[in-house]
Amino acid sequence: MNGSGARIGPSHPKVSGDAEGHILPGLFLVTLGLWWSTKSILKYICKQQKRFSFLITPQFLSRAEILEGIAIIVVVLVAMTGQFYWIVNVKPSPHKEMQEDQIRNWQHVIIYVVLAMLGVIKILCFTISSLPVSLITLMLSNSFFVEAFLIHNHPKSLMVVDSYVHQLVKFTALLAGLTAFIEFLLAKNNVVMELLRSSLTMLQGACLAQIGFILYPKDMEHAWDLNDVNNTAILSIYFGVYYASTYVIIGVNYVLVSWFIKWKLSKVYPSEIQFLKNYEQQEDSEDGM
Amino acid sequence: MNGSGARIGPSHPKVSGDAEGHILPGLFLVTLGLWWSTKSILKYICKQQKRFSFLITPQFLSRAEILEGIAIIVVVLVAMTGQFYWIVNVKPSPHKEMQEDQIRNWQHVIIYVVLAMLGVIKILCFTISSLPVSLITLMLSNSFFVEAFLIHNHPKSLMVVDSYVHQLVKFTALLAGLTAFIEFLLAKNNVVMELLRSSLTMLQGACLAQIGFILYPKDMEHAWDLNDVNNTAILSIYFGVYYASTYVIIGVNYVLVSWFIKWKLSKVYPSEIQFLKNYEQQEDSEDGM
Amino acid sequence: MNGSGARIGPSHPKVSGDAEGHILPGLFLVTLGLWWSTKSILKYICKQQKRFSFLITPQFLSRAEILEGIAIIVVVLVAMTGQFYWIVNVKPSPHKEMQEDQIRNWQHVIIYVVLAMLGVIKILCFTISSLPVSLITLMLSNSFFVEAFLIHNHPKSLMVVDSYVHQLVKFTALLAGLTAFIEFLLAKNNVVMELLRSSLTMLQGACLAQIGFILYPKDMEHAWDLNDVNNTAILSIYFGVYYASTYVIIGVNYVLVSWFIKWKLSKVYPSEIQFLKNYEQQEDSEDGM
Amino acid sequence: MNGSGARIGPSHPKVSGDAEGHILPGLFLVTLGLWWSTKSILKYICKQQKRFSFLITPQFLSRAEILEGIAIIVVVLVAMTGQFYWIVNVKPSPHKEMQEDQIRNWQHVIIYVVLAMLGVIKILCFTISSLPVSLITLMLSNSFFVEAFLIHNHPKSLMVVDSYVHQLVKFTALLAGLTAFIEFLLAKNNVVMELLRSSLTMLQGACLAQIGFILYPKDMEHAWDLNDVNNTAILSIYFGVYYASTYVIIGVNYVLVSWFIKWKLSKVYPSEIQFLKNYEQQEDSEDGM
Repeated sequence: MNGSGARIGPSHPKVSGDAEGHILPGLFLVTLGLWWSTKSILKYICKQQKRFSFLITPQFLSRAEILEGIAIIVVVLVAMTGQFYWIVNVKPSPHKEMQEDQIRNWQHVIIYVVLAMLGVIKILCFTISSLPVSLITLMLSNSFFVEAFLIHNHPKSLMVVDSYVHQLVKFTALLAGLTAFIEFLLAKNNVVMELLRSSLTMLQGACLAQIGFILYPKDMEHAWDLNDVNNTAILSIYFGVYYASTYVIIGVNYVLVSWFIKWKLSKVYPSEIQFLKNYEQQEDSEDGM
Repeated sequence: MNGSGARIGPSHPKVSGDAEGHILPGLFLVTLGLWWSTKSILKYICKQQKRFSFLITPQFLSRAEILEGIAIIVVVLVAMTGQFYWIVNVKPSPHKEMQEDQIRNWQHVIIYVVLAMLGVIKILCFTISSLPVSLITLMLSNSFFVEAFLIHNHPKSLMVVDSYVHQLVKFTALLAGLTAFIEFLLAKNNVVMELLRSSLTMLQGACLAQIGFILYPKDMEHAWDLNDVNNTAILSIYFGVYYASTYVIIGVNYVLVSWFIKWKLSKVYPSEIQFLKNYEQQEDSEDGM
Repeated sequence: MNGSGARIGPSHPKVSGDAEGHILPGLFLVTLGLWWSTKSILKYICKQQKRFSFLITPQFLSRAEILEGIAIIVVVLVAMTGQFYWIVNVKPSPHKEMQEDQIRNWQHVIIYVVLAMLGVIKILCFTISSLPVSLITLMLSNSFFVEAFLIHNHPKSLMVVDSYVHQLVKFTALLAGLTAFIEFLLAKNNVVMELLRSSLTMLQGACLAQIGFILYPKDMEHAWDLNDVNNTAILSIYFGVYYASTYVIIGVNYVLVSWFIKWKLSKVYPSEIQFLKNYEQQEDSEDGM
Repeated sequence: MNGSGARIGPSHPKVSGDAEGHILPGLFLVTLGLWWSTKSILKYICKQQKRFSFLITPQFLSRAEILEGIAIIVVVLVAMTGQFYWIVNVKPSPHKEMQEDQIRNWQHVIIYVVLAMLGVIKILCFTISSLPVSLITLMLSNSFFVEAFLIHNHPKSLMVVDSYVHQLVKFTALLAGLTAFIEFLLAKNNVVMELLRSSLTMLQGACLAQIGFILYPKDMEHAWDLNDVNNTAILSIYFGVYYASTYVIIGVNYVLVSWFIKWKLSKVYPSEIQFLKNYEQQEDSEDGM
């Protein structure tokens, strides 16, 4: 890219926060997006071809959702412990920068609380049958919206690149929230909407992890110049690359899941494979109508 | 939170308006949101299980809606009387701040007038059967939109916290209006949308009541510094807490209403309870399909 | 309102354009909104009660739509003639203000051209049956959007009130366009959406006519001070009043149309009235279910 | 228009990029929009009248879509080759303007990559029957959104006209993306939505081609003054004219396609024409109901 000249800052300014606090949540979001895409693809393939439905029974799916809820709660509790450790250890001080750090920490705590509520509602909706299942998608969109709102209200940074990378995360959180809200309104499973949400969640994770590398570089020699406005344009290119990558990842995932299901089926009913191919051709001609 | 240092302002500036004019409408909105959530939960439970439908007959619901309309009109008339008392007693003056106060008062009057129109339309739609019922939801969204529009056009305050708290109210009014408009477009009762609207209305009430405590503090010692931009970030945390709280409140409300209905039923048909449990299990297995 | 002090400007600045060029299009839009609301109410009542359908046959409606299209084209042609008269008579000049006037005139011409296209499409869709009828609603929303876009791109005025009144018109055009677009997406006649569009069109007409009175006052004594920012807040109150008024007007219109239909029916079939009352009661009890 | 005085700049500033790099993609988009409108009209007419369906069989349509995908990929590869030629030949330099050029080139490359992905998905969805077809519309809206995002993040130009013409392209890309996304949500073929998307794509192409003529004029005598804010208002008029033109073009296209189909039919079944006319009259009376 030959843009390295633009990225090297002679003296790297002090930015509050640390690399791990951005990279780990980023990886969590990428994993979540990947898991959601796998779940959606599995459900889609099994719904499309009735023969596979023995692989994914309602009981299996219900248990998977409850496990997902528990996983979210556990991850959130670990992250919150980290935040509280930070909050307690940093002494209150009249210094303005310190105060801003504390505010940011509390804003993160609220984001985690709302995410934990998503986990709780997920568990409740799949154990108590009288609750409406659409509550989960609404809560999901809410947790993304609350995140976007609180990142928007972060104490403002004066460095243009710092401000820009947070805007990207806010933007992806907003888009993921909107996607989840539209899913809630559609009120029926739509595999493409679910994959869109997965891709936006992965994108958000990538942006969040990227913050860790840009704002808190290990190698000060190749650190980004946080005050160069051209670096925001370079980051927008990265953003486009990440987004295109999420589609490639989901595509590869689709192929892998399809292979896995066919392999599983061939072990159980080897004779079904031929039937399957006929079925697909039939579908093909129907689809073309 | 240890942020008390940031909140204490050495000299509290004069802000137009009074605490009661914000706290009382705030409490009204919280009550309205709570009542809406109760109504929606009642309808949802009774619709889900036909056995309960004798509790909520169409006549009962229709009367409840008319009473709600009357209650809204009465509250609005009381509030408008207060506004007019203020308008008449404040002498017209060339002083710029006085003029701004008068403008704000008239803007509030219009908000109340449109809210009263909601009450009138509610009564009309439930007494004249030929009117379309969806008119109520449209009028509801309109009254929130008009509120957001007029708060947006309030004479601008120079104090950053004053401006921010009004922005929060505007934001929640806009969201509640959008939610009501989507409900109107969906054109069928959706319990989760109704609960979302309830939660946003309660949130708006909380923000409005909060203005009363922040801008017109009783205890000048712990008054907020209205010019400190960090206080807006602290308020965004409170906003997140309020929003999470509305969900907890609605959850508790759901449990209470469920218990109430079961208790009522046990008094009327004690033998039905066993039947009910079987019914629930049946629902469960159907839902899991 | 006692705000007259705020409105009197000692020396009224020269604003390009004239009062008639704003008041006449404003009245046209109010008339259009009124006609649309009448048409919608008529269709709604006749659809609700099959007995009335002899009053509004498809042929009658189709002819009414074609007449509406012709009326729109005629009005637009008259308005465009006025614009071209202005364009031709004003000599090209290097004076900047003159140029801005010419630009505004041409922007108005494009708005009129797109409005004329709406008329043409209306006529085509109701004479050629193979064209999709939803094209009309799309074109309607387009003509409002193009209007909003071109008003947004008017050469900027430095006077705060001049800029604000144009923003109000832009805002209402945008809302009316959005409403028409949602109607197009819903793809079925929804009386409340149609009335909403009518009310927003009337509101836009009122705002447009208001510009004529505010920017080009006849009585210079009571002219508005175009540089006083408080006047924009006062105008927002007027905006709220106009909006509430459109609802009252539509309500009165509903009552008048209902009476007219019943009177018409009583002349044709006097004996039907009793039947009608029974029918209404029946509807009532069904609706309450 | 007599506005030539406003457009002549005494000394034309150097703007990065060249005319061909804007005119050729612009023409490609206009062609794409034109092809989409033709395809939609063909499908609409053949769906409306079952008799024509032998003209457009599912196999024919499927092959046309695959060809479209291949054409998009080929065009994108050619355009990307041009971009890479530019990237490689321009030496890296510490000069700020050079860096900005490189950034713009890479942003264009990402836009092309996402467009190529649209072509790939089109081919995949029409060859592998188990993939959901709605993926194409989603990818289409994504490619427009990514384009709008990357144009929004172009290194900012200081010249007001340069910035404005790019805003117009961003605006149309956003609108086309939104239209495609709504089409995806509707999840069924709607001819008017498809024509709307075609018209917006043509509009975007016209705006893009226009950039080539405005920023890189051949005839320096009549070059636009890139710093005159009035020129943006003149461009908004052109924008309106282009939009109205796309509707005229689509209208003419509709007439041509209709004639072509009738002529084709008259050659195959001359006796059907009379039948057709009867059929149309029948449709007419049904439609009027």
